[in-house]
Amino acid sequence: MIKVLNNGFVELVESMGHDEAVIRNARRCWRSESKGEDADRKLLRHLIRERHKTPFEAMVFTFDVKAPLFVARQWFRHRIGSYNEESLRYCAALRDYYIPEGLEGEALEAWKAHNEHAYDVYDELVGKYKLPKEQARSVLPVGLYTNFYWTVNGSSLMNFLNLRLDSHAQYEIRVYAKAVLDLVKDVAPICFGEFEREVLNAGD
Amino acid sequence: MIKVLNNGFVELVESMGHDEAVIRNARRCWRSESKGEDADRKLLRHLIRERHKTPFEAMVFTFDVKAPLFVARQWFRHRIGSYNEESLRYCAALRDYYIPEGLEGEALEAWKAHNEHAYDVYDELVGKYKLPKEQARSVLPVGLYTNFYWTVNGSSLMNFLNLRLDSHAQYEIRVYAKAVLDLVKDVAPICFGEFEREVLNAGD
Amino acid sequence: MIKVLNNGFVELVESMGHDEAVIRNARRCWRSESKGEDADRKLLRHLIRERHKTPFEAMVFTFDVKAPLFVARQWFRHRIGSYNEESLRYCAALRDYYIPEGLEGEALEAWKAHNEHAYDVYDELVGKYKLPKEQARSVLPVGLYTNFYWTVNGSSLMNFLNLRLDSHAQYEIRVYAKAVLDLVKDVAPICFGEFEREVLNAGD
Amino acid sequence: MIKVLNNGFVELVESMGHDEAVIRNARRCWRSESKGEDADRKLLRHLIRERHKTPFEAMVFTFDVKAPLFVARQWFRHRIGSYNEESLRYCAALRDYYIPEGLEGEALEAWKAHNEHAYDVYDELVGKYKLPKEQARSVLPVGLYTNFYWTVNGSSLMNFLNLRLDSHAQYEIRVYAKAVLDLVKDVAPICFGEFEREVLNAGD
Repeated sequence: MIKVLNNGFVELVESMGHDEAVIRNARRCWRSESKGEDADRKLLRHLIRERHKTPFEAMVFTFDVKAPLFVARQWFRHRIGSYNEESLRYCAALRDYYIPEGLEGEALEAWKAHNEHAYDVYDELVGKYKLPKEQARSVLPVGLYTNFYWTVNGSSLMNFLNLRLDSHAQYEIRVYAKAVLDLVKDVAPICFGEFEREVLNAGD
Repeated sequence: MIKVLNNGFVELVESMGHDEAVIRNARRCWRSESKGEDADRKLLRHLIRERHKTPFEAMVFTFDVKAPLFVARQWFRHRIGSYNEESLRYCAALRDYYIPEGLEGEALEAWKAHNEHAYDVYDELVGKYKLPKEQARSVLPVGLYTNFYWTVNGSSLMNFLNLRLDSHAQYEIRVYAKAVLDLVKDVAPICFGEFEREVLNAGD
Repeated sequence: MIKVLNNGFVELVESMGHDEAVIRNARRCWRSESKGEDADRKLLRHLIRERHKTPFEAMVFTFDVKAPLFVARQWFRHRIGSYNEESLRYCAALRDYYIPEGLEGEALEAWKAHNEHAYDVYDELVGKYKLPKEQARSVLPVGLYTNFYWTVNGSSLMNFLNLRLDSHAQYEIRVYAKAVLDLVKDVAPICFGEFEREVLNAGD
Repeated sequence: MIKVLNNGFVELVESMGHDEAVIRNARRCWRSESKGEDADRKLLRHLIRERHKTPFEAMVFTFDVKAPLFVARQWFRHRIGSYNEESLRYCAALRDYYIPEGLEGEALEAWKAHNEHAYDVYDELVGKYKLPKEQARSVLPVGLYTNFYWTVNGSSLMNFLNLRLDSHAQYEIRVYAKAVLDLVKDVAPICFGEFEREVLNAGD
């Protein structure tokens, strides 16, 4: 598990396939089998360059992610993947919200005071005025932390990393993307090593 | 354009195909052509019952939607469809937020006061403390209105309607789903008339 | 591995998640955890009935399939899933084709003679006339066996089974779907047991 | 309608959105509107370069395609799009098959004789031996012409063109891809003009 921002994290819950599955699936095309790491690595590099993405769909990952809601919203724009998230229709909101690292002084005080007040109003709406939680959440801050599982194949994951590690991506999602990359490089070092070399470090 | 909730709307911006395309595509299977409204209607009913969904993908709709952010989050969970939304990374947030219809008295006052205060804090963070908008939005309320285009085919739309018109769906998205249904029934009356009869009114 | 038709098979190569992942993901919604098999089974039954499909996407399967090309064509119509297939652009076609079980007498002789001749013509076009394999395959029979990997999540798999085990589906794909069901019931008995009870045996 | 190969074609049946929709959707992000062709063109170029694909999903096209079955198989590998095809379960196969342009002499004679014989055997299996059409089609050649509708959005279409106009793609699908490009450049000249310049003519 990798901690991210003031109170978030990314954890790799389970995974399937890894480098072996990608090589196996890529070689199905020619009815061939793994020819040793050098040849396999060269093959994967070729697939990445030529945008032959389907073999990378044979590896699949499930992550547990805790992130501010506005980060989750950017994340969920990636449609090729599966999400299950805690629901504020059924769960009470936890007093747990994003605080930017560099924030200090009066700005930090205003930030905290407002966020705390939001939860106070929420508690009052639910407790005193008997509003349903699903409606009362309207007053909660967009920076509240949410928690979701994400199941994604290697190809869609590479697309996510490519867009969300980009220097134009928002800082708050870039740090999550970096954590995701670190986790998958551990379990599929050839695929994501070549991906990093060919795509991420290649400029545009 | 249909107004929804206190300050939202749904508008059908453009569409393609309609009943004619669905009938045309369904009949491609048999190399046949439209055989008059009665036969066509019977065919579409059969397709809906037997879950033969692909012909309904030949009709496509683009909507302009303005909805509270928590409604948009439920909406975007529907992955077969295209979204383009205004971005609070680049646009200043507008002082425009959801107020439930039945809310009154002290609860309404607390609701409004908190929401107004959220925008005050946001303005201060951006104006006085020079935080980037993309970060300052953390303090905004989950009930803020957002605005997006949605392009969706008829089959995915039926799935959306089936789930979001359900009595267990949250009220705030049900009223949007109802508006969407009204708009598409106007342009594809056979498809959505049969869908309503076979699916929506059929119980489970 | 389960043998299918005269010369085909389905094998479950690897899988991830199973019943545990579906239960885990379903319960994320309420921030709860597994409550024993009876409660979990009841929950899954409810999800299947109410068409809440996303938790079933947390289990993923990779199959190795050998099937006649016309069966593969029906299979590949299922778009939510990943395929890697041997390519007759690069591989020489094998003399391996579908023969229906009940075929006999003159019809069987005509069947075999024609199929064998197709491979003779193919060999001649490639060997003597130097046509590229990718072009020469035009003369091969639609019943030739092909071989592919299929990676699919549990929700998309249920949709496949629902449509391809239907009595209106072609016999030749129904027997593959039956083999797939047998394989996944072994590794995810609660999910596919409930699916069988609620959907497959429920009539329409 | 553009004729392709010895007996195929591509026709643009209907379309929606075009350049205007892509510009409109792209500008939603900033709450802005079209700023004249030069600025719009520059914006689209930027989106293509930065792989911001969603605005291109606001334009949608339906094609009618007649192509050899092995070309259709490559086509249908593109999963983001909708297909409705004539079915040889229900329709009798037409004596209509692919003949490569350069084929001549004995090779051409062998090609034609074998293909004609395949249809003779098919007719006999269906007529004399009463096999169901869906089974008898096993003996038909992989080069038979099939006919399908394809509905696809602009982003998925660009991916199709990028892969299928590549010099490594099979000639027989490249000529279809070229026809598709010609048809869409007519109706969305800015989008596909910039795509051609930035992607197709940019080398790898």
